[in-house]
Amino acid sequence: MTTDEAIAQTMQQLGRDAVAAQGVLSNSSGAQRSQALHAVAAALRLQQAGILAANERDMSAATAAGLGRAALDRLQLDAARIEAMAQGVEEIAALPDPIGATIAEWTRPNGLRIQRVRVPLGVIGIIYESRPNVTCDAGALCLKSANAAILRGGSESHHSSVAIHDCLVAGLLAAGLPAACIQLVPTTDRAAVGEMLARMTEFIDVIVPRGGRSLVARVQQEARVPVIGHLEGICHVFVDRAANLAMARAIVLNAKLRRTGVCGAAETLLVDAAAERTLLGPLVRELLDAGCEVRGDAAALAADPRVKPATEADWHTEYLDAIIAVKLVDGVDGAIEHIARYGSQHTESIVTDDAATAEQFLTRVDSAIVLHNASTQFADGGEFGMGAEIGISTDRFHARGPVGVEQLTSYKYVVRGSGQVRP
Amino acid sequence: MTTDEAIAQTMQQLGRDAVAAQGVLSNSSGAQRSQALHAVAAALRLQQAGILAANERDMSAATAAGLGRAALDRLQLDAARIEAMAQGVEEIAALPDPIGATIAEWTRPNGLRIQRVRVPLGVIGIIYESRPNVTCDAGALCLKSANAAILRGGSESHHSSVAIHDCLVAGLLAAGLPAACIQLVPTTDRAAVGEMLARMTEFIDVIVPRGGRSLVARVQQEARVPVIGHLEGICHVFVDRAANLAMARAIVLNAKLRRTGVCGAAETLLVDAAAERTLLGPLVRELLDAGCEVRGDAAALAADPRVKPATEADWHTEYLDAIIAVKLVDGVDGAIEHIARYGSQHTESIVTDDAATAEQFLTRVDSAIVLHNASTQFADGGEFGMGAEIGISTDRFHARGPVGVEQLTSYKYVVRGSGQVRP
Repeated sequence: MTTDEAIAQTMQQLGRDAVAAQGVLSNSSGAQRSQALHAVAAALRLQQAGILAANERDMSAATAAGLGRAALDRLQLDAARIEAMAQGVEEIAALPDPIGATIAEWTRPNGLRIQRVRVPLGVIGIIYESRPNVTCDAGALCLKSANAAILRGGSESHHSSVAIHDCLVAGLLAAGLPAACIQLVPTTDRAAVGEMLARMTEFIDVIVPRGGRSLVARVQQEARVPVIGHLEGICHVFVDRAANLAMARAIVLNAKLRRTGVCGAAETLLVDAAAERTLLGPLVRELLDAGCEVRGDAAALAADPRVKPATEADWHTEYLDAIIAVKLVDGVDGAIEHIARYGSQHTESIVTDDAATAEQFLTRVDSAIVLHNASTQFADGGEFGMGAEIGISTDRFHARGPVGVEQLTSYKYVVRGSGQVRP
Repeated sequence: MTTDEAIAQTMQQLGRDAVAAQGVLSNSSGAQRSQALHAVAAALRLQQAGILAANERDMSAATAAGLGRAALDRLQLDAARIEAMAQGVEEIAALPDPIGATIAEWTRPNGLRIQRVRVPLGVIGIIYESRPNVTCDAGALCLKSANAAILRGGSESHHSSVAIHDCLVAGLLAAGLPAACIQLVPTTDRAAVGEMLARMTEFIDVIVPRGGRSLVARVQQEARVPVIGHLEGICHVFVDRAANLAMARAIVLNAKLRRTGVCGAAETLLVDAAAERTLLGPLVRELLDAGCEVRGDAAALAADPRVKPATEADWHTEYLDAIIAVKLVDGVDGAIEHIARYGSQHTESIVTDDAATAEQFLTRVDSAIVLHNASTQFADGGEFGMGAEIGISTDRFHARGPVGVEQLTSYKYVVRGSGQVRP
């Protein structure tokens, strides 16, 4: 048997076990799943030393392999990060049980009573990279929504993920649920990803990729199962002529610089040409003074000698860094046009005191999240009050925007009659 | 340029035109789209002679090609069928406008007001077979929900579809909407289907296949865009020990025989072993007397000499004909087990006067539609009060069960603030 055959066999078995475990989850109570989540949190705290030791092994190997600073930071765990994971699991436990909830109900003229009732999606495959906390977050979100999870983490974080996964299993067993409700792919061979994407259609109902462009591109290319996609966030802030300068300044700085590595960080600032003198200059200077590199069009270049010239590529770029592209546009129409052309339909914000202009923007910009007078960095399931999220979907299909427990469900129709037959 | 290259070019142009037209639809009012639909209905009535002449050409060619009786019936149009199409379009026009509706709204502690608002999916590709009325139904449903449609009908019905499509275009133009809102693929070359499935990901947001197993299989194999799938309906009726015989009889006969060619027709009758004498015999005889072929297990064979022996394949078969498989099962647990093993998660019904047993069945059977004391033939968007449907989804992702205008939408989040930045 070749390695690939062995991996294929392993993955098929994982798939069968996931389906069987999901059957148990479908008939579990919300209380039982909450109990399991609380036990997971307890196990994470109890196993802190073991998790840190495993993480240390990953960190040493990654350092030796020459991983960059940002990647090492994503990989590293400490006591505070483990406590944050445990608290995250407890927050998910405290969310209302989505399963069995009646989403809609109505009665037909013939007396049939129809209910649309929330059910799990089934088996969810999550493919991610170096952040070990995804093992915990994704497992907990799937468990809450009664989905079985097959987790495939990055090879850099494998030891950390195994240690965290042990805590997930401990929690499941403590609540009398099968360990196979949350499985971690035991091999770091990339062939396992290929199996999940293309040869487990019988077992996996949906794939959630979490990672950079190359991972997402591979998933979109190879997947034979539905995908909840998370593409890049080329987010825009448009400052309209009727914006209040102080508010615009606060929102632009927060949207760009609060955290530069998140998908909801602003990458492009659009300023209304009618406010070139009053708003463009102050905003550009403020960004530069805060340490942000500014790449601008002719108007931005004229505003401050520190501005560098923007090229066409800049309008397409998700910097994920302290760099911003700045452009003057012809009012809200110009902003909408620019966003339609260069945006990634993730998150865009307008700053204006003009309610009619704001409505124009909110209605016509076709992004998962559109904001008026608020920072793009609110693009986050927690900030939306959804408790936690498995990512921000840039798809239009099934789920759009933050993907929380509710977005990890499907529904079925329950119809109650009294002997009705169809004429 | 080869034929394939020419087809690829044609399809790319269709895609670009669809995206542009969809942009117009996104900003159209519900009233304008309703006006277009009423104009479509008027055009269908006005062009009746032309549609019938085109259909006559299709029928002649199909007869010459030796198409079967059922296929010819699906293909044939007459004045009544055209009037039914026109009325269907008017019913769709009368539905509430789904676009712009607020699905949910809430306010966060920081004052951000969040609304989840319905938006179109975008561009929908519909690939179907010989029924020309799908051209009309699918086009109208997409228009109602502000989606652009690219329709690819079967070659047998091409002339009919072109004539019907002319009416759709007339309606669009009458309401000032672009003709490209609903496009019909001009070629019947199968390469065009391949283009839609795999090489138009940039333009097409979702594919809806409507047709037999081979079409659906091809779509599932080749599609690189999301699919709203419609697999077979191996629907079950379970008659419990606590069923009323008269009600069971009415439901079983209706579920199997009202129309045998629809996906909601029952294919298997399961009878509680505790009611072998009281219910199995009478139901089997009733079916046989009504002209239905019965293929049964040992108990069914013993009930009447006209019963033929069922093989393993029968439990897997969607007959779409006056044939039913009959089996004795061990109570509701046995029924649930059989359905989990052989069903297609489409539609199942339990007949019982025992409320607790009914709840067991409704909760534990994992199908898009589960019914208590009602016929499986209610599996239909119109019967559900959804106005019309583009099919019954057996997927769990995005849409499950009848796919009406609401299921052809996505949503976006509109967030209104007063200067909030994220801490």
